[in-house]
Amino acid sequence: MSKRAANAGDDAASPKRGKQASPAASTTTTSSPDDDGWELKPSNVANQTINYIRTIVDGIAIPAGTEAKPMLRLSIGDPSVFGNLDTHSTISDAVAAAVKAGKSNGYGPAHGLPKAREAVVKATPCHPEHPITPNDVIIASGASGALVIAISGLCGAGDNILIPQPCFSLYITIAEHYGIKAQLYELDSQKHWECDLADMEKKIDKRTRAILVNNPGNPTGSNYSREHLTAVLALAAKHHLPVISDEIYGPMVWDGDFHSIATISTDVPVICISGIAKQQLVPGWRLGWMTIHDRAGRFERHGVHAGLMRLSQVIVGATTPIQAALPDILSKPPTAFFEKTKTTLKENGQYLEAAIAKIPGLRATKPQGAMYMMVEVVPGAFKELTDGTSFADKLLNEEFVFVLPGACFKADQFFRIVTAPPRDILTQAIDRLTVFCKRHHK
Amino acid sequence: MSKRAANAGDDAASPKRGKQASPAASTTTTSSPDDDGWELKPSNVANQTINYIRTIVDGIAIPAGTEAKPMLRLSIGDPSVFGNLDTHSTISDAVAAAVKAGKSNGYGPAHGLPKAREAVVKATPCHPEHPITPNDVIIASGASGALVIAISGLCGAGDNILIPQPCFSLYITIAEHYGIKAQLYELDSQKHWECDLADMEKKIDKRTRAILVNNPGNPTGSNYSREHLTAVLALAAKHHLPVISDEIYGPMVWDGDFHSIATISTDVPVICISGIAKQQLVPGWRLGWMTIHDRAGRFERHGVHAGLMRLSQVIVGATTPIQAALPDILSKPPTAFFEKTKTTLKENGQYLEAAIAKIPGLRATKPQGAMYMMVEVVPGAFKELTDGTSFADKLLNEEFVFVLPGACFKADQFFRIVTAPPRDILTQAIDRLTVFCKRHHK
Repeated sequence: MSKRAANAGDDAASPKRGKQASPAASTTTTSSPDDDGWELKPSNVANQTINYIRTIVDGIAIPAGTEAKPMLRLSIGDPSVFGNLDTHSTISDAVAAAVKAGKSNGYGPAHGLPKAREAVVKATPCHPEHPITPNDVIIASGASGALVIAISGLCGAGDNILIPQPCFSLYITIAEHYGIKAQLYELDSQKHWECDLADMEKKIDKRTRAILVNNPGNPTGSNYSREHLTAVLALAAKHHLPVISDEIYGPMVWDGDFHSIATISTDVPVICISGIAKQQLVPGWRLGWMTIHDRAGRFERHGVHAGLMRLSQVIVGATTPIQAALPDILSKPPTAFFEKTKTTLKENGQYLEAAIAKIPGLRATKPQGAMYMMVEVVPGAFKELTDGTSFADKLLNEEFVFVLPGACFKADQFFRIVTAPPRDILTQAIDRLTVFCKRHHK
Repeated sequence: MSKRAANAGDDAASPKRGKQASPAASTTTTSSPDDDGWELKPSNVANQTINYIRTIVDGIAIPAGTEAKPMLRLSIGDPSVFGNLDTHSTISDAVAAAVKAGKSNGYGPAHGLPKAREAVVKATPCHPEHPITPNDVIIASGASGALVIAISGLCGAGDNILIPQPCFSLYITIAEHYGIKAQLYELDSQKHWECDLADMEKKIDKRTRAILVNNPGNPTGSNYSREHLTAVLALAAKHHLPVISDEIYGPMVWDGDFHSIATISTDVPVICISGIAKQQLVPGWRLGWMTIHDRAGRFERHGVHAGLMRLSQVIVGATTPIQAALPDILSKPPTAFFEKTKTTLKENGQYLEAAIAKIPGLRATKPQGAMYMMVEVVPGAFKELTDGTSFADKLLNEEFVFVLPGACFKADQFFRIVTAPPRDILTQAIDRLTVFCKRHHK
């Protein structure tokens, strides 16, 4: 089995890069000491740090495609790689100018330059009675960096955190890195992937320290209603649990409005995660943040706010020239720039949903936001292809269409399609998917 | 006591930024539950994450200075803030061009873009019989990010790591964040701050997993000889311990040559830490790396190499346009650029050493590299001023000269002077230091 390139990223390999074998995957390891007395081993932290997407993707042999059927990659959650969605010139100009000006080359405060945190405050929707200040913002190395601080700030080894299933599996990676148990609660594919509140409540125990919600959803493409988020908050309040809300796909929705859970909470402390990766189409720039909506001042009173600040001092955040440009990045691009992305994702999502509805054996779920769509492999519909993993594997090898098996997101019966690519790539993929399903359907 | 601005950075506040009170310092916390049943607390990880410099500096009331005596800050280890040492135009041009080109906005591999890792290989001194490949490089969010991966990859909770005393205290912060014990070994101020090998050996026990060495040294300004590094390696080999060598100040030396410990090791696995913060004068850009010099293939055989790679997948490294520009950053600036920095630091260091030798009650140690100098407060020399903390505090409040007390580096009898500022600032500082010492000398 040929190993795939050692590419990473948010959740799947870029098609552009990498020729080397994955060092992680290609290493043959042994736990017996060397003859000369050396006895090395990775630490427990290293052993319990598993990126599930990488582990699965690194195990997939990726064929080259053919001239007639070039490889179609609908796997990577990176809107910038397909060439149809570029960042706006006001964004790159602002950063290039900050770099050339040379006034922002020094260390910034660990939780971010004041002007960057002020810009985040301006751009963050809040509850009308509870505005935030720049001291409620921590700029981090990507939204992932902010998630590390939030999860490790609220939960410690032996605690647990409620995490949706399916989910962006980095949540689990971060939790397990710190010896925190990822307690998975179900999302309901029949109800636009809403949280199954009964299941969520069942999973809460004495060691539960926080509830993580992801809205708009990856890999689900869901967009939660105000009513649903209110119900989540009611459950959090009943059990006195703070909420971490990953809102990196922020207002990238078209079916209903986007509601930040921070705008709804009246009592539950909320940490919102966001950044410039997806909306501004620059995931590689690694600038994200958390906003701390400390309803009722509980985080401050009990030292949690101070603890989050201390955690931000370990690796000292994001690139300063990009921080210096953040006021421009968040204010200069015209509405049309964001609308173009949203329209592309909406129309692609609608196209895919309608097209997949006609393919035997598949059941698409409706994307309402973000840049993903989950497709269920109907149990029993295919010979041999019993789940998302076997389906995705065969599809890749027979039709050179690369979708991520749902196992990457703890949803075995599904596969995930990225809805960001240009339409002609999607129509080719649908054509091949149709042929493939007809061939394998019982 | 007025609180200082919430600035962080490598190790001390920038004079330029921040007006808010430190959130960490200004928060009054309580551990008793709220009346309504909420019982929040920071995690054990947050509680054991202490940035010692910030904790000390945040507790210092910083006066404003006067018109006659403006504040002189010799505290911050950031060469870019004084205005006399700017990065080179080839460096900022390369990054600005990468940003404008828009070809590097997507996710890179977790351990770095291939071309960035290739550039690091080219720039890294190796043992002639053991070259490294791009798979031995992990690009990270600053050298700090690389240190997090290296320390947590080799040591786990309950283990210990040997760390120099005095030291850049982030080593301790990172270790304690993971529940790793920082086992301090002494550096000898009488021998150019060489490692006290007898003390180092005494501190090794069954739970010791690695030896951390810092060369050139912060806060010591030391530059270790080939012989000394060979002796350190012999001790590491005897006890079968890998070495983490923080070489972020790389070739910034003038008293003797710089020797990377990786060029000397014939048997001991070495992880070297470096980056563009100090030599290229852009600490805020947050691009650092580790190079894995896996002598005898031990890391690979025992899964340590794979563990380090897995750890790199948690927050996904450094800003991609800066990675894309790294080949230019590391090859384009002319030798004169590096020489200017080195000459400034050398001449400033020599000036300070000679000037302090004439001040009663102080004992300077000779800077051989990096951008620091440690000054000992001679025990018993002053009325009241018994250690580095009381000395630095009084100096700040009477003379508006800000130096960091040695307690920031676990060296109570010393204070640290940054040698990077323009000479006129240093001469003013020496004048005030002289007056101050004469006034307080017994």
